[in-house]
Amino acid sequence: MLRGMNDVGVLVHANPDGDCLGSGYALCLIMRSIGKRARVLCSDVPGKKFTDIFSVHDTEQFEPASYVSVDVAAPSLLGKYDALAEKVSLCVDHHATNSRYALASLVEPEAAATAELIYLIGKELGTDITEDIATALYIGILTDTGCFQFSNTTPRTHIIAAELIKKVKDFAELNRVFFAVKSKQRLMLECSVAENMRYYCGDRIAVIAVSRKLREETGLPESELDGLAPIPCRVEGVEIGVTIREKEDGTWRASVRTATYADASAICAAFGGGGHIRAAGCTLSGDMLAAEKSIVAQCERELNRTK
Amino acid sequence: MLRGMNDVGVLVHANPDGDCLGSGYALCLIMRSIGKRARVLCSDVPGKKFTDIFSVHDTEQFEPASYVSVDVAAPSLLGKYDALAEKVSLCVDHHATNSRYALASLVEPEAAATAELIYLIGKELGTDITEDIATALYIGILTDTGCFQFSNTTPRTHIIAAELIKKVKDFAELNRVFFAVKSKQRLMLECSVAENMRYYCGDRIAVIAVSRKLREETGLPESELDGLAPIPCRVEGVEIGVTIREKEDGTWRASVRTATYADASAICAAFGGGGHIRAAGCTLSGDMLAAEKSIVAQCERELNRTK
Repeated sequence: MLRGMNDVGVLVHANPDGDCLGSGYALCLIMRSIGKRARVLCSDVPGKKFTDIFSVHDTEQFEPASYVSVDVAAPSLLGKYDALAEKVSLCVDHHATNSRYALASLVEPEAAATAELIYLIGKELGTDITEDIATALYIGILTDTGCFQFSNTTPRTHIIAAELIKKVKDFAELNRVFFAVKSKQRLMLECSVAENMRYYCGDRIAVIAVSRKLREETGLPESELDGLAPIPCRVEGVEIGVTIREKEDGTWRASVRTATYADASAICAAFGGGGHIRAAGCTLSGDMLAAEKSIVAQCERELNRTK
Repeated sequence: MLRGMNDVGVLVHANPDGDCLGSGYALCLIMRSIGKRARVLCSDVPGKKFTDIFSVHDTEQFEPASYVSVDVAAPSLLGKYDALAEKVSLCVDHHATNSRYALASLVEPEAAATAELIYLIGKELGTDITEDIATALYIGILTDTGCFQFSNTTPRTHIIAAELIKKVKDFAELNRVFFAVKSKQRLMLECSVAENMRYYCGDRIAVIAVSRKLREETGLPESELDGLAPIPCRVEGVEIGVTIREKEDGTWRASVRTATYADASAICAAFGGGGHIRAAGCTLSGDMLAAEKSIVAQCERELNRTK
């Protein structure tokens, strides 16, 4: 199917992360290796860390004749490109919840990252896995496996990583830049939210709230506020960690993480959201206290259901 | 050599970490699999996280007839067992600085962790890599590679990890418990030291100080204070991160980490310490300000030397 395509638009999800961008740019490079034109289409401008690495591959401007989506579980996740969903010939994804909106779907929920599937596609197409392709795929795998720490990591993930790090010039520096290093302001923000974390249900639920006011105080751009979600579950005994963040329109984006048994996607489904069992998201309305109260109530229900 | 031994004492280094303990207990289990008695000898009692996992393997009390050391670069690191150094038949280690004190040495500096070498020894001896052995070796590898993020990680490291996670029942939970989860007090301590971090040389050097007073205030046991050392280098632009911690005798234990080019072992060598290029340690004397001043001066010299 890919061999038959020309002038390919690779669609990734809005609010892009390392896996959709790594997978998207790697697929572009793979398509170019077999003589096609390809470019990534993303509803939002990615964070600086990503554009530093990937913008160099944005070399071709053309009207796509075919569309492939990567790491996009449903049309609504395409953001401003959602109308293109019906034109998607192939969707490559690892979300079990994929709505099968594409003409053909390669959905493998056992894959830790969509990047794993793109790697296998590259091998299948006979593409030489260059440093650029390896770097993009490695970032994808790191992002979705939490640097090989999450339960979705499989032996295959490590075997692919073994191949990729042969090509990535300085994978340790990439790990550092993407996952360890933060600005002073960001460190201060993390300390501030950790120190002000609220606990419920005998410390089994912990909530971080980032209001527009707090964000303005730190002076950090919106994109620098990502990645706070894992913090609550890093506290001993916390099973459900919730991070709520005020959006420009006054609603709250909630990110739910669970430690060992609770189902984050079940909690978020109650608010029309979704995701995986250990990580999911949804949108809440009301002021901070109302938003927090409504999701904490849902978390309690999930705890009662599972324990 | 191992096949010819009986009643083996496996020596690990004082102030034990995941790699020496994981390697040590895995080697014991491997020796038992070929019909030998084996036990770990460690100068200090390991932290609770380790005893929870490993104490179940402390099943045999006997007077060792042979000694093997693992992850021990020099006799002085054996602590109260240092007199046994001359009885060590075999040393398995990955420190380039290994002083070759043993009768025979298997020292491979390219190995990310001593646990990699123990895995290869297990395979060589035909041992079935059981869940217990895999768990011990996996902890060793995670510890010394910073969960596959440090530059010492090699394709072989990932290939061995692919084998190990087939056997480790819940490797994600192990990652969580060992590397992500912390107590509320510990989180508060980390925030406190991060907020009070001092910067030098245009923010290229950052210093954390943990006095006995601060430790008493947090109410944390000594063992819970480990692992602060990576914090300073997580700040953008910091090349050398120093953590100094007051010991019971009033001297200061310094842990030096470097980000990308400075040599931590060169800095610590000036105070009679040592280690690796990215992580090293030494002991400092004087009050807090004097200790900090002396090591910061040495860090500046290293920055001037390398840039």
